[in-house]
Amino acid sequence: MMRAVELRGDRVLILDQTLLPHRVKVLECRTPEQVRRAIAEMRVRGAPAVGMAAAMALALAALRSGGSPEERLRELEEVAEELRRTRPTGADLFRRLEEVMAAVRKAAREGRELGRAAVEEVRRRLREHEEVERRMGEHGARLIRDGSTVLTHCNAGWLATPGRYGTALSCIRFARRQGKRVRVLATETRPLLQGARLTAWELSREGIEVTVITDGMAGYCLSKGMVDLVVVGADRVFRDGHVINKVGTYPIAAVAKRHGVPFYVFAPLSTFDLSGRVEEVEIEHRGEEEVAKVAGRRVVPRGVRVLNPAFDLTPPELVTAFVTERGILHPPFSRDLLSGARGRVLPGGRV
Amino acid sequence: MMRAVELRGDRVLILDQTLLPHRVKVLECRTPEQVRRAIAEMRVRGAPAVGMAAAMALALAALRSGGSPEERLRELEEVAEELRRTRPTGADLFRRLEEVMAAVRKAAREGRELGRAAVEEVRRRLREHEEVERRMGEHGARLIRDGSTVLTHCNAGWLATPGRYGTALSCIRFARRQGKRVRVLATETRPLLQGARLTAWELSREGIEVTVITDGMAGYCLSKGMVDLVVVGADRVFRDGHVINKVGTYPIAAVAKRHGVPFYVFAPLSTFDLSGRVEEVEIEHRGEEEVAKVAGRRVVPRGVRVLNPAFDLTPPELVTAFVTERGILHPPFSRDLLSGARGRVLPGGRV
Repeated sequence: MMRAVELRGDRVLILDQTLLPHRVKVLECRTPEQVRRAIAEMRVRGAPAVGMAAAMALALAALRSGGSPEERLRELEEVAEELRRTRPTGADLFRRLEEVMAAVRKAAREGRELGRAAVEEVRRRLREHEEVERRMGEHGARLIRDGSTVLTHCNAGWLATPGRYGTALSCIRFARRQGKRVRVLATETRPLLQGARLTAWELSREGIEVTVITDGMAGYCLSKGMVDLVVVGADRVFRDGHVINKVGTYPIAAVAKRHGVPFYVFAPLSTFDLSGRVEEVEIEHRGEEEVAKVAGRRVVPRGVRVLNPAFDLTPPELVTAFVTERGILHPPFSRDLLSGARGRVLPGGRV
Repeated sequence: MMRAVELRGDRVLILDQTLLPHRVKVLECRTPEQVRRAIAEMRVRGAPAVGMAAAMALALAALRSGGSPEERLRELEEVAEELRRTRPTGADLFRRLEEVMAAVRKAAREGRELGRAAVEEVRRRLREHEEVERRMGEHGARLIRDGSTVLTHCNAGWLATPGRYGTALSCIRFARRQGKRVRVLATETRPLLQGARLTAWELSREGIEVTVITDGMAGYCLSKGMVDLVVVGADRVFRDGHVINKVGTYPIAAVAKRHGVPFYVFAPLSTFDLSGRVEEVEIEHRGEEEVAKVAGRRVVPRGVRVLNPAFDLTPPELVTAFVTERGILHPPFSRDLLSGARGRVLPGGRV
């Protein structure tokens, strides 16, 4: 089973998503800097996968660092800071780095080996995320009726996560396990074509019927009654239910609302930001080349400017519900939501 | 001054828009079939330009046809029928062909030369359209304040029309003549990138500041208050105000409405269809390659299906107003609207 990102010994393995669907190539990163560059260049992308790749990079740094525990912690803080700057919009990245830093700080206090503590923390979070994806898939599958057509934007499958199922696309996998027939409409997702290249590749190789449309065609498909539900992932979810996700999500949500088509956001609790404010989040703007060039060829005339925001903001009134590992939720979210997710056992035995 | 389409002697000159912005090449069509193919391959596109190119193709056929007037009319009917099938969604195409057919039928009845009658009809409609574009620009310019940013989709400039100004983009030209500063945000308009390739080229060579975004970024820009008004063209406008335009128009209109940004449709009366019903119009679906390939390179995995509707439908409640050669109008439109456009002098001396 391939994974978007893996920690194997002292190497981080990253499936290079910039080459898909034409080439399946795994990058072997031996240094935190190599992982950092792979994140910045979007060789690994998707908030959960990016967060875990960064955690792995920090674990590599912990394994490689030398000197006194204080010196090593300082060095790791610097590495974490560089990693944070790669993709500043998603919530996972900050959370995962903080988890590893907490683990190494604790190890330093207790006189344990920092490298091993970091690796153990990463492995624990990987197991946890695999379970999170499974639960999201099971909860989400209840929303899908036999014979449904599901519209999705960008890629929220296993290519976007460290686990086997993905976030939004996990519900399609579990619906199929339940014997339901499901078709997928995937927007191509310019500029980097994650829908056309990644979602189509990931689903079709499992025998799931997928049809690609351009981003602008989602309105046509929704208005023609071709879509039963919309499922998307999330890079950051706020307490009031605002969602930051791949640019182009918001117009789809707006049109879905007009036609009464349910719009579900699949978000592991690691993407929730219950204390942040929407206005304060930095929307990442990426390089002009991504828009000006298509598949390596310049299409915009020279001298013409380009704008490239990577995300947009969908307001809560357009979201039918949020699918998380804890079930199907509605905003505003409880402030206790995340403490539960961090291992506290809630009444009823659910984590 | 370059034109999207011209009739010169017994040749139709078509600026090949599939090669822009990289190459400026004019196709010389000597046969109706060459023009028909240029329309089908979207070397000329934009409802008004397509309509006029088809009229010119029919004029070429009239010039070349031989035999009795009855035989010639039959032959021309066949040519017109083939031309109608090229791009079945726009209203201009049908209207322009009917105008030329009416002219040659009349000439046949009156014993005049069919070819000359067809050419004269085309020339008359060209002069008329030039004036229509000028008037739309003048009316539209009133909607633009100094310092405005105008969002537009696809290309509704002179590349989309037979005249010098275009439809939606004409207002930008006339606003500038009035000394107003105007910036343009142009969606790239997948699959064929008319925004990135054509709108950006056409505006930037006149020194108009234009910034290209992907189609999915329109929501971000509208939500951030970056847009003062939206202007688009139309392929067909119905009596109740429903608008068929390039796919991707509808989601932009839906989001503009949510943010209170005015959304204007620029439509010469030749694109109005006051008797047709929305449900009866055939939305053209084009070949899979246009979506599956980007700039000539396949991006969708082999075996994955693609959908390629060329247009979508925007409901009247999302349109702030319609800008026509007769001024700024609101639906439902009078049944007399078109008879006036066909030359009847209205009170006040306006056509």
